[in-house]
Amino acid sequence: MLFGNIDRGEDGTLHFAGHSVTELADRYGTPLYLMDEQRIRDNCRTYINAFLENFPEGSQPLYASKACCFAQLCRIAEEEGMGLDVVSAGELYTAMKAGFPADRIHFHGNVKTDEEIDYALSCGVGTFVVDNPDELEALQLRAAAAGKVQNVLLRITPGIDPHTYVAVNTGTVDSKFGSAIETGQAEEIILRAEALPNIHTSGLHCHVGSMVFDEDVFERTVQVMVGFMAELKRRRGLVFEILNLGGGYGVRYLKDGKKVDIPARIGEVARVLKACCAAAGMDVPKIQMEPGRSIVADAGMTVYTVGSVKRLDGFKNFAAVDGGMTDNPRYVLYGSEYTVLHAAKTGVKARFDLVGRCCESGDIIQPKVMLPADTCRGDRIAVCVTGAYNYSMAANYNRVGRPPVVMLTKNGSYVAVQRETFADLCRLDV
Amino acid sequence: MLFGNIDRGEDGTLHFAGHSVTELADRYGTPLYLMDEQRIRDNCRTYINAFLENFPEGSQPLYASKACCFAQLCRIAEEEGMGLDVVSAGELYTAMKAGFPADRIHFHGNVKTDEEIDYALSCGVGTFVVDNPDELEALQLRAAAAGKVQNVLLRITPGIDPHTYVAVNTGTVDSKFGSAIETGQAEEIILRAEALPNIHTSGLHCHVGSMVFDEDVFERTVQVMVGFMAELKRRRGLVFEILNLGGGYGVRYLKDGKKVDIPARIGEVARVLKACCAAAGMDVPKIQMEPGRSIVADAGMTVYTVGSVKRLDGFKNFAAVDGGMTDNPRYVLYGSEYTVLHAAKTGVKARFDLVGRCCESGDIIQPKVMLPADTCRGDRIAVCVTGAYNYSMAANYNRVGRPPVVMLTKNGSYVAVQRETFADLCRLDV
Repeated sequence: MLFGNIDRGEDGTLHFAGHSVTELADRYGTPLYLMDEQRIRDNCRTYINAFLENFPEGSQPLYASKACCFAQLCRIAEEEGMGLDVVSAGELYTAMKAGFPADRIHFHGNVKTDEEIDYALSCGVGTFVVDNPDELEALQLRAAAAGKVQNVLLRITPGIDPHTYVAVNTGTVDSKFGSAIETGQAEEIILRAEALPNIHTSGLHCHVGSMVFDEDVFERTVQVMVGFMAELKRRRGLVFEILNLGGGYGVRYLKDGKKVDIPARIGEVARVLKACCAAAGMDVPKIQMEPGRSIVADAGMTVYTVGSVKRLDGFKNFAAVDGGMTDNPRYVLYGSEYTVLHAAKTGVKARFDLVGRCCESGDIIQPKVMLPADTCRGDRIAVCVTGAYNYSMAANYNRVGRPPVVMLTKNGSYVAVQRETFADLCRLDV
Repeated sequence: MLFGNIDRGEDGTLHFAGHSVTELADRYGTPLYLMDEQRIRDNCRTYINAFLENFPEGSQPLYASKACCFAQLCRIAEEEGMGLDVVSAGELYTAMKAGFPADRIHFHGNVKTDEEIDYALSCGVGTFVVDNPDELEALQLRAAAAGKVQNVLLRITPGIDPHTYVAVNTGTVDSKFGSAIETGQAEEIILRAEALPNIHTSGLHCHVGSMVFDEDVFERTVQVMVGFMAELKRRRGLVFEILNLGGGYGVRYLKDGKKVDIPARIGEVARVLKACCAAAGMDVPKIQMEPGRSIVADAGMTVYTVGSVKRLDGFKNFAAVDGGMTDNPRYVLYGSEYTVLHAAKTGVKARFDLVGRCCESGDIIQPKVMLPADTCRGDRIAVCVTGAYNYSMAANYNRVGRPPVVMLTKNGSYVAVQRETFADLCRLDV
């Protein structure tokens, strides 16, 4: 098994979640997003079970839907007992359409417009994660107008550097997110929230970054946050029942890459948490976490058809496919690494740059990958572990339609998001 | 005048193409793409007139619609006498829906699927710009099946380094585009095309890159291409009537940035062209160019509403708006520079990072911009020169809908692309 849900048949043909990749490509066309439904459910259960084992009753993992958001994925997360983290009214609308219970939804984001706040209030969203004082004041006004007391978490910046890529590092003092402990602004927003009649603060939220592998990042975050909560109790008599640690565990993109043992890591976090709370004379708060990538990344695969192969002896080879930065912008944005596999051929390999169809030299899916030397137009190529931040970040650059998402089950497959047609692309043109 | 079509009224309010930016934001909502229709028309006419003055009859500038593609923009380009460069069946579909004459359309791209080739043949597209041998063979097959002889240009890589950003540098030997002169592959594909019964090669195409400012880039390109055409004539007896020089003139994004004098530069290119042809004993070919950015960039402006302001004394200030990398990914992709203006206030300034609403620290529209120190939630902020590669590269990350495009005229304004609604975002979810 190459990745647990990826292997090759005796004839060398690639299988994903037990299905022939070539047959799926023939049936649904390319480019094509595939998702392994059971893997998504298993990943959810890993968190659910680790939470039951380690954290107080009422603790809850929430699926961070920004990693990949469509109606059926909300339904799956709901069925597995996850809460849901949405970051816009668009994600919230998707969840509501999918029938996700509003009380298990957290509404995130550093910019919430008045219209979005009103919409979320009207949906009965369980928790607003309030990012900043401007939002807090706006929420007070709108909640008062709606005659509601809104439950909130306040987003706090703990000042932790998670040693991840700078674009996804969110916990340092100079982040655009949250209110920093270090500057006194965290305490300020907490006191202000306490003074507002239509705001009920049930806890604090923090999020230090994405693609976190270092063992101690969440442990250090717990130490800082529990320390801060103990301070608030001691100096202000404030006790909050919830501590939300955000998301961020890294996933394995390459066969020999690092892999996080999530149950073990959560066990470590719980031990540190309990020790810190005991030392501070505090009850252990209910814990929330917001995994996104680690729920969906390894449940995804993208399948392309080769459109042209170029061999520039002494320079390089290109295999150009019918998708690209439009369906997977992660290499162009972050230089992200991916495992690339031929769907059928297993012969002698040569080095290729796997490039996309966009009219831009930067449109590279993955440079320097080993593919069969006889790779040619019409061949199918699979890019592995594309379940997170691929469909959700996809664009229509060059007016290329977005691929469908096909969900794979034990017994079959079904379309969860339809392919975008030419007519769809022009629907809003006047 | 800040940029020719941007100025401030006596009360300090910002005007774009003669309209109050605040009034437009009130009327159409934010985020909002504005486009100055007259500026687009003027930019087209600059090329049309320079071509009439400098190049043989039958020469033609084509608007590269990848810079910004929607139906009304195709109509405007058509009315101004431009040809159209499309890079996908989606762009072609848009042009056909807009009633653009198929014979003035060039079909570009390094990957054309069989379905796209068939569609373009059925539309009667005037010219395929054939990128590679795989495409050439596929086109021969499909054209034969359709009983057509298809007119083509062959894309040649001249081996010119335009000294631009690597992601938009397309003319060096190791490019994913075209067939290189240096490796002999250019001559190979030309000879192959000559041998194919359903292919008529009317000329050669090259494109060295985007955002080109250096005076001599196009001149060097002309020297290389005319030299190559002269070789083909001498050694193979092949004469082509068209030389397409691609696109690429840079535009001014900052007030004190460089500005290309396009008529002057085209005059220079023409002089070099005529001299090279005379020296080689060749007739001057019909010239085509494919401007995109220089047609639409300075016709565009994006207007946002501030959602929150954060002041981290000793660190930095943030102004976070209701859009971001979803409507303008150019800073996150290329570190692109933009001019940022407050729509109403003109008081004492402070330094801000203008950031977006996406749940990602990298979601920066422009760092270190000077804005009024009292900028606050609800204020309108304008980002200038966003007409190219903003709407066309926009995405729905975080399920944020794409802004509408509102076209500004002397007497009024009208919606050219409607705002994407929540329902639009979920339309393909099953």
